[in-house]
Amino acid sequence: MKAEILSVGTELLLGDILNTNAQYISRELANFGINVYYQTVVGDNPERLKNAYNFALNRADIVITTGGLGPTKDDLTKEIAAEYFNKKLVLDNKSLQEIITFFKKINREISENNKKQAYFPEGSIIIENNNGTAPGCIIEENNKIAILLPGPPKEMIPMLNETVIPYLKKFHEGTLVSKVLRITGIGESSVDNLIGHIIDNQTNPTVAPYAKDNEVILRLTAKTNNEEEAYRIIEPVERQIRNKLGDINVYGVENQTIEGVVAKLLIENKLTISTAESCTGGLLAGQLINYPGISSAFLEGAVTYSNKAKINRLKVKEDTLIKFGAVSSECAAEMAEGIAKESGTNIGVSTTGIAGPDGGTDEKPVGLVYVGIYINGIVKTKKLNLVGNRQKIRDRAVAYTLDWIRRELIKYLKEGNN
Amino acid sequence: MKAEILSVGTELLLGDILNTNAQYISRELANFGINVYYQTVVGDNPERLKNAYNFALNRADIVITTGGLGPTKDDLTKEIAAEYFNKKLVLDNKSLQEIITFFKKINREISENNKKQAYFPEGSIIIENNNGTAPGCIIEENNKIAILLPGPPKEMIPMLNETVIPYLKKFHEGTLVSKVLRITGIGESSVDNLIGHIIDNQTNPTVAPYAKDNEVILRLTAKTNNEEEAYRIIEPVERQIRNKLGDINVYGVENQTIEGVVAKLLIENKLTISTAESCTGGLLAGQLINYPGISSAFLEGAVTYSNKAKINRLKVKEDTLIKFGAVSSECAAEMAEGIAKESGTNIGVSTTGIAGPDGGTDEKPVGLVYVGIYINGIVKTKKLNLVGNRQKIRDRAVAYTLDWIRRELIKYLKEGNN
Repeated sequence: MKAEILSVGTELLLGDILNTNAQYISRELANFGINVYYQTVVGDNPERLKNAYNFALNRADIVITTGGLGPTKDDLTKEIAAEYFNKKLVLDNKSLQEIITFFKKINREISENNKKQAYFPEGSIIIENNNGTAPGCIIEENNKIAILLPGPPKEMIPMLNETVIPYLKKFHEGTLVSKVLRITGIGESSVDNLIGHIIDNQTNPTVAPYAKDNEVILRLTAKTNNEEEAYRIIEPVERQIRNKLGDINVYGVENQTIEGVVAKLLIENKLTISTAESCTGGLLAGQLINYPGISSAFLEGAVTYSNKAKINRLKVKEDTLIKFGAVSSECAAEMAEGIAKESGTNIGVSTTGIAGPDGGTDEKPVGLVYVGIYINGIVKTKKLNLVGNRQKIRDRAVAYTLDWIRRELIKYLKEGNN
Repeated sequence: MKAEILSVGTELLLGDILNTNAQYISRELANFGINVYYQTVVGDNPERLKNAYNFALNRADIVITTGGLGPTKDDLTKEIAAEYFNKKLVLDNKSLQEIITFFKKINREISENNKKQAYFPEGSIIIENNNGTAPGCIIEENNKIAILLPGPPKEMIPMLNETVIPYLKKFHEGTLVSKVLRITGIGESSVDNLIGHIIDNQTNPTVAPYAKDNEVILRLTAKTNNEEEAYRIIEPVERQIRNKLGDINVYGVENQTIEGVVAKLLIENKLTISTAESCTGGLLAGQLINYPGISSAFLEGAVTYSNKAKINRLKVKEDTLIKFGAVSSECAAEMAEGIAKESGTNIGVSTTGIAGPDGGTDEKPVGLVYVGIYINGIVKTKKLNLVGNRQKIRDRAVAYTLDWIRRELIKYLKEGNN
């Protein structure tokens, strides 16, 4: 079944509000196995709304509209749906009573306009609205389904979940199961090179890639008779993908985050960590402690922006700063070891670099970042050359460092400090 | 001129991501006096994309696409635009060089695929992308304008602002000048209560409010014959708004950020600052040092997540932690004073709270945050009750604290420590 979402409201076209409804409905329908082929936004203009409505209903089996059910003259979705299906608008007494009750409850006078909200195309299934005055409706005719929902997400979402999704179940065959793989360390085009043939040739499960900041996401979606079977057909494709990409590059699945993966490795292995940040200025610690249970593993962070702080807090040698500078492999190493020893943690991690826009030289350009990791006695450093503006360089340094901690931890846990 | 936005990407139709691009572009065009009549989202399906593209270009004068400029076979926007305008795709050497440089800089192998990103419909105006490998382009033909931009907002937004908007200016009559006022400390509905009548009745300049995370933005847009005249008619309306809202609540104008305003206050008055963070875990320092010149004012930050770190690093008294707990006004005060004295700065700022989801009690619920500020000998604290998930609570605590630093600094600079 092909679905289309038509969002009605001039405020969307002016960019005054974000179209969260389209995302929400799309996700719910996708989980449910219904393909959304288009999302359209149109203003409260009768002619353009009518055109968009006709167009959508001609190409899709199901059209879900949001908006245009309010009490004003601008609110026209029901009128236009009635016209499309050649139906009269008739009063629904139950809805009228509910609207009257609603107004009593919020201590406001009901206006004549609001009564318009109790009229629906004849023969509609009414969708109750427990959070506002605009009930929705479903019109089913000639193999087309029109579902009319109000615009405010607080009203729309419960109506979708409580009435529309259960209603749509009757049209649904089979089960749709998705599994998400999360990839770091290799870019979108490399992923495409390595597994493009799988993406192209897989039909069940399908494999859909998309790139987010600092990661690539693969969604494997199987359509089967039951969940168990879905996972059974996903498994070999997932294995093949992991082999091609390198298992270490798949850092997590589903909604896992890189900081969550690192945090779990630390907590499960009773390892403690501390951070010493220069160019990332606290963002590394800030992301690590996104993970709610982190407090048993993360003991302390230092943002040592000045050289003095590096010397006092982390015992970086003045000599090192003079000889190699603050942005150097040597300094990163001393920072990582210093914070670990100062805080008494197993692991210390450091960042030092030039985030720009100023401060770069030919020898040490903007984007040059050294990161250090100390794990129970052994220090390693890495040199990164990052691109982007100040914000991006810092974000990428944090993403790289978190992933590097993960890789080094896995190595350490497998091999020890050899 | 009628414009239409066509967002390309299956991830949008699956509801994996929110279409923030459509909102952003719509708002920019609206500010500019160009009407957006439709926003459409279509997946990476060649046939449907082609249909949507043709349809959009037939009914609109300007079609702006986002997405589909990536290196994979799924990325088809340029191909479809070339077909629509009956043009060949030709190599742009400058773009190719930039892509090669980009890959060298990030130390990755360039794949054959990436070279596809340097091909454009013949005769296009190329739009440089300084934040990624996908340049955009503009095709102008037969009174139609097609503007192709990449999907990632961090790449799309600068390209829109730096190239597309200046390009569109030539189609625009008169001068449109906007001034942005940035407001913190009062919410969207309070702003509406205080200046709703101005927003409703102002026609030139128009006043358009919108709410962002932790701030409300007002855009005053004047349409006149020249820039000077525009600022002259904006000025009295701005003054009226500032009076109504309270001048201190307007923290900045145009693209100023709260951390930038704080940083400038510090640097201009030769004041130094350090931070001691518990629940915000480094995010406060991380945001402060967004400001490029901050290194002369921000000397050091401590992320003292454990009680031990609070005692060792900040000299918080063990007694205080036992009597009042780490989440207390007393602890916040000692943290702020402690970090200032330990780092030898004029100002010390602290945060300590319960970001959740666990750890809340009846007495100290999730969202309870104490912040402290020490300025040259005087300590103050504030108790905040914040709502939202862990991430939101921490973001709001950082936003509140930065604004509070601003307000306290202004007071201190005016009155001293009286």
